[in-house]
Amino acid sequence: MTTAALLYALDLAGVAVFAVSGALAAGRKHLDLFGVYVLAVVTATGGGTLRDVLLDRHPVFWIADPGVLGVALAAATATVAVARWGVIAPRVLRIADALGLGLFAVSGAQAAEATGVHVVIVVVMGMMTGTFGGVIRDVLTSEIPLVLRPGRLYATAAALGPVVYLSLKALGMAGAWAAAAGAAATIAVRFAAILFRIRLPVFVLDAEPDDNV
Amino acid sequence: MTTAALLYALDLAGVAVFAVSGALAAGRKHLDLFGVYVLAVVTATGGGTLRDVLLDRHPVFWIADPGVLGVALAAATATVAVARWGVIAPRVLRIADALGLGLFAVSGAQAAEATGVHVVIVVVMGMMTGTFGGVIRDVLTSEIPLVLRPGRLYATAAALGPVVYLSLKALGMAGAWAAAAGAAATIAVRFAAILFRIRLPVFVLDAEPDDNV
Amino acid sequence: MTTAALLYALDLAGVAVFAVSGALAAGRKHLDLFGVYVLAVVTATGGGTLRDVLLDRHPVFWIADPGVLGVALAAATATVAVARWGVIAPRVLRIADALGLGLFAVSGAQAAEATGVHVVIVVVMGMMTGTFGGVIRDVLTSEIPLVLRPGRLYATAAALGPVVYLSLKALGMAGAWAAAAGAAATIAVRFAAILFRIRLPVFVLDAEPDDNV
Repeated sequence: MTTAALLYALDLAGVAVFAVSGALAAGRKHLDLFGVYVLAVVTATGGGTLRDVLLDRHPVFWIADPGVLGVALAAATATVAVARWGVIAPRVLRIADALGLGLFAVSGAQAAEATGVHVVIVVVMGMMTGTFGGVIRDVLTSEIPLVLRPGRLYATAAALGPVVYLSLKALGMAGAWAAAAGAAATIAVRFAAILFRIRLPVFVLDAEPDDNV
Repeated sequence: MTTAALLYALDLAGVAVFAVSGALAAGRKHLDLFGVYVLAVVTATGGGTLRDVLLDRHPVFWIADPGVLGVALAAATATVAVARWGVIAPRVLRIADALGLGLFAVSGAQAAEATGVHVVIVVVMGMMTGTFGGVIRDVLTSEIPLVLRPGRLYATAAALGPVVYLSLKALGMAGAWAAAAGAAATIAVRFAAILFRIRLPVFVLDAEPDDNV
Repeated sequence: MTTAALLYALDLAGVAVFAVSGALAAGRKHLDLFGVYVLAVVTATGGGTLRDVLLDRHPVFWIADPGVLGVALAAATATVAVARWGVIAPRVLRIADALGLGLFAVSGAQAAEATGVHVVIVVVMGMMTGTFGGVIRDVLTSEIPLVLRPGRLYATAAALGPVVYLSLKALGMAGAWAAAAGAAATIAVRFAAILFRIRLPVFVLDAEPDDNV
């Protein structure tokens, strides 16, 4: 599998699951059907768009291929249809988000790697690509972004995927397998945080805020 | 009229009306005069800036032409002056926003069209260009973005303008007339929503949110 | 000192102080250590990233040089360490923010100047570069952005630095000295606002908001 084909597959899968998380977030805020589609598409494409703009990769992935938007709309439609038939458990949003985080963290790392930047930048670009769609979704629906919720292992998970991917490749593993292992590592950490409520220690600043200056 | 001249005229008119909406939003939040100008300029230039960055059109329209900023500042100054003299009806913000939405939705569609992308991308770029300035304005003033308010026909209106523009052009109408008709279609739908309170049905997700995971 | 070296020095110093302000904002919101780093890095790099993307300067400064991220992480770590040892006065966040504002306002102006754009655009790019990191920090932590707080002289200060820089250069001063004077002017105005609570008059719009349209 070529790197380009692998990136494309990761992007499409990431778009689908982030679209589900966007549609569910829209449902929680009681948006109309068009609002559901808007939030689904923005959540699904946000991370990859930031990646492409920062790395100067033009055309941006969904501009190059409108099928990406079709995938997001189909996933959002399916989410609404399922929600009409029955109750969707609250944590499905988090689970879809965790899957998108893992897929885009690795796709962002791969895209950065292809431009020959420093390995630290590869990891950071992976983190940004993985987290940004969810950040937009949360800011637009007035939620504190998941990546900033205390102790949720979110940024840790986003960093782990690119690190695992790079490490396994350095050890000689084929790119596609290393990418799969990296995405799985990110997803596994977030699943652990969601299912077993594992938490990181919190940094509390003692000083009182003084917002009047 | 050339496409470039038409785009420029649409952009200037869109900048002026979005600047009015930004200045009014700043007034509601009791900002100082400099804050009014900041919010007016950001609202006025946000959509076109996103369009230019995503389509890799450099220099960005207001960097290429500082007159754009002059128009935004003049519109904001006029808004403050009128507000000093008398009361501005609350819905003037929404009306100015509707005008900007229509103008930028068509300018975004035209700019995308010129790059030869798929027709679906042309519509989506129009929607993004039309809505983004208002989204920034609303996020910065801690309001739920209009495009995500349930049932407001906002995204519908944003999509309609590019669709009308493309359809009329495909039927043989000259670009400038098709653009005018597209902008008018978007504006008409939003005016209907504002004046007659027409609403779309809302998608309600039954599940309780579980924000603790 | 070459312009490139000067820009680099301004960027590194700006990154360090904005990282401190981001880490302190994270502490106020009780984020975990990874969240502290995320907010510190995003605050520290946001303004320069916007500058580089809008001016089409690729690679973006921190992608070109991962040392930038090291500076941000070191500053955040130092902030957490100091906060563990003792109480940090609330206004330290605002003071760090003021320093970053001045440094990035001048670096943004210089970068814009190098592309040959109109002098008004040079000032506006300086303002955007200086303020954007703080805007992201405040939006992500659900605070009203400092630049939009009424009467805080924030945008005034952000504009003053680039204006002083350009004026002194036009009068024949060497670029490095003009840059230092510009940054100092911005910082001095914000320090005055913080320490002596100097305020600008506020624009109040009388009309009641009507959010139902």
